[in-house]
Amino acid sequence: MSNVIENPETIDVPIPSNAHTIDITSVFKPSNHSALLILNQPISVPNFKQLWSHYKLKICGDGGANRLYEYFDADSEREQYLPHFIVGDLDSLRDDVRDWYQSKGVGILPQYTQFATDIGKCLETVEVYYDLQNQGLELIPNEIDPYDGIIQKHSKLQGFNDNIQVIVIGAIDGRFDHTIHSIMLLFKLSKSNPNLKIFYLTATDLIFMIPKGLNYINYELIQDSIHGSNSGLLPLGGPITLNTKGFKWDVENWDSSIKGDVSSSNRLVGAKGVSINTNDDFILNIEMNYKKL
Amino acid sequence: MSNVIENPETIDVPIPSNAHTIDITSVFKPSNHSALLILNQPISVPNFKQLWSHYKLKICGDGGANRLYEYFDADSEREQYLPHFIVGDLDSLRDDVRDWYQSKGVGILPQYTQFATDIGKCLETVEVYYDLQNQGLELIPNEIDPYDGIIQKHSKLQGFNDNIQVIVIGAIDGRFDHTIHSIMLLFKLSKSNPNLKIFYLTATDLIFMIPKGLNYINYELIQDSIHGSNSGLLPLGGPITLNTKGFKWDVENWDSSIKGDVSSSNRLVGAKGVSINTNDDFILNIEMNYKKL
Repeated sequence: MSNVIENPETIDVPIPSNAHTIDITSVFKPSNHSALLILNQPISVPNFKQLWSHYKLKICGDGGANRLYEYFDADSEREQYLPHFIVGDLDSLRDDVRDWYQSKGVGILPQYTQFATDIGKCLETVEVYYDLQNQGLELIPNEIDPYDGIIQKHSKLQGFNDNIQVIVIGAIDGRFDHTIHSIMLLFKLSKSNPNLKIFYLTATDLIFMIPKGLNYINYELIQDSIHGSNSGLLPLGGPITLNTKGFKWDVENWDSSIKGDVSSSNRLVGAKGVSINTNDDFILNIEMNYKKL
Repeated sequence: MSNVIENPETIDVPIPSNAHTIDITSVFKPSNHSALLILNQPISVPNFKQLWSHYKLKICGDGGANRLYEYFDADSEREQYLPHFIVGDLDSLRDDVRDWYQSKGVGILPQYTQFATDIGKCLETVEVYYDLQNQGLELIPNEIDPYDGIIQKHSKLQGFNDNIQVIVIGAIDGRFDHTIHSIMLLFKLSKSNPNLKIFYLTATDLIFMIPKGLNYINYELIQDSIHGSNSGLLPLGGPITLNTKGFKWDVENWDSSIKGDVSSSNRLVGAKGVSINTNDDFILNIEMNYKKL
């Protein structure tokens, strides 16, 4: 029997003992291996400089380098925010931007193959970078085949298996087929590249995949910016059955699908976190209260 | 056997004799009953004033009225762009904006129920408006129950069955659960409200549903702004099998799903249109070349 329960504005949610935990604090303050990707949309996240300071590896996808360049008014500031690499087929990268970053020592890493997208190439670069680092090696752009060297290297990873926290800005809100491609990658890479923990950040939202099973979303250390936020449980991978604890409208044995019912405009009322049991992967968005971050 | 064919940049696509036709020209120059909805996102479509002049009924969804108000610098211009109605639970509508529009005779139509969203309330208002007009009657806000009068009236439509061309701005690119709710409505309303022909327009894209069956997308009269455009065939309602003619990468008996393969970053190379045969409803986006519209 399915059921919907309307909760008060704050409830305590017990942490299930056997749950997979997703720690939202670590999205904003990653503790170990991490990468910030900047794709080709105007940089609109209010906490951009904070993210930059917390993330270790920074990569611009093609025209994302134009956006990083344009984000700053003066070279004196721009010089303090140099990415490690600019990756992609480089058909959107402005010549003057390329020259400027190259003159500052940024690695230009062309990957001309059309059998992968810029976001895909960037994500594989992240794994190759850390895999090489794990072997005591560096990723040297001149040593990478400009057609598909990253993909070749990615197919021969040496077994670096730690989680890598990745935040991507510019993956959502551009061309709609780009947005949907980004969502598709969350499902796909959770299987093929499980050590990448990928989160998309927009001017309004944090967007990520909730895997099949029992999950606990922990936001205890940044509850001011999450508790009370609008949220949607979005069955973009296909129909799901949900059980939740900590939403304004919690559900029990509730069937959700894009052509049926979707819980959008729900709210996070768990004081420190919420738990979600799902019989298949789906997408969650959380509206960010950036001012309180 | 599935197959992918790479086409030249322009090909002639024969119009199938038995196809359902979607006329993109009519989206920008609707000939009959039509409605422009403005939702609560900054107005970013470059051809906004052109749309306004071509669409008959204009409705702001709640805070969408703030966005319309803010779009103009001076009252002298603002007065030339008065919507017919402001509809919704009105929790986002600024008091000064409400007062200004009310003083100009705009109908304020509160619908406080939380069992529908602002976009849903606006779309039902469109149908109620034309249904009343068809009976020689007017939609008078004071006569509508402010809790759910539109929904009540919508449940008793008198049988107006002509197509109504609806364009919605602000449905995509805001909070991500709002975006997905908008997509969900395309699938849902195509069944429940089949005379509404709904198109979403963003700063970059036109987004709409392709119904199950053989379709011809005709853009002959505005081919300068469509031919060559980027496009994605997005299986957001579930897995589909596609046959296309007129895309850069045409497909034959091709299975597509969000967790499998998606044709994003494809391109429209049919000179005047493309044909699509699908075994289930899906979403198409077309990048707009607004400068050539």
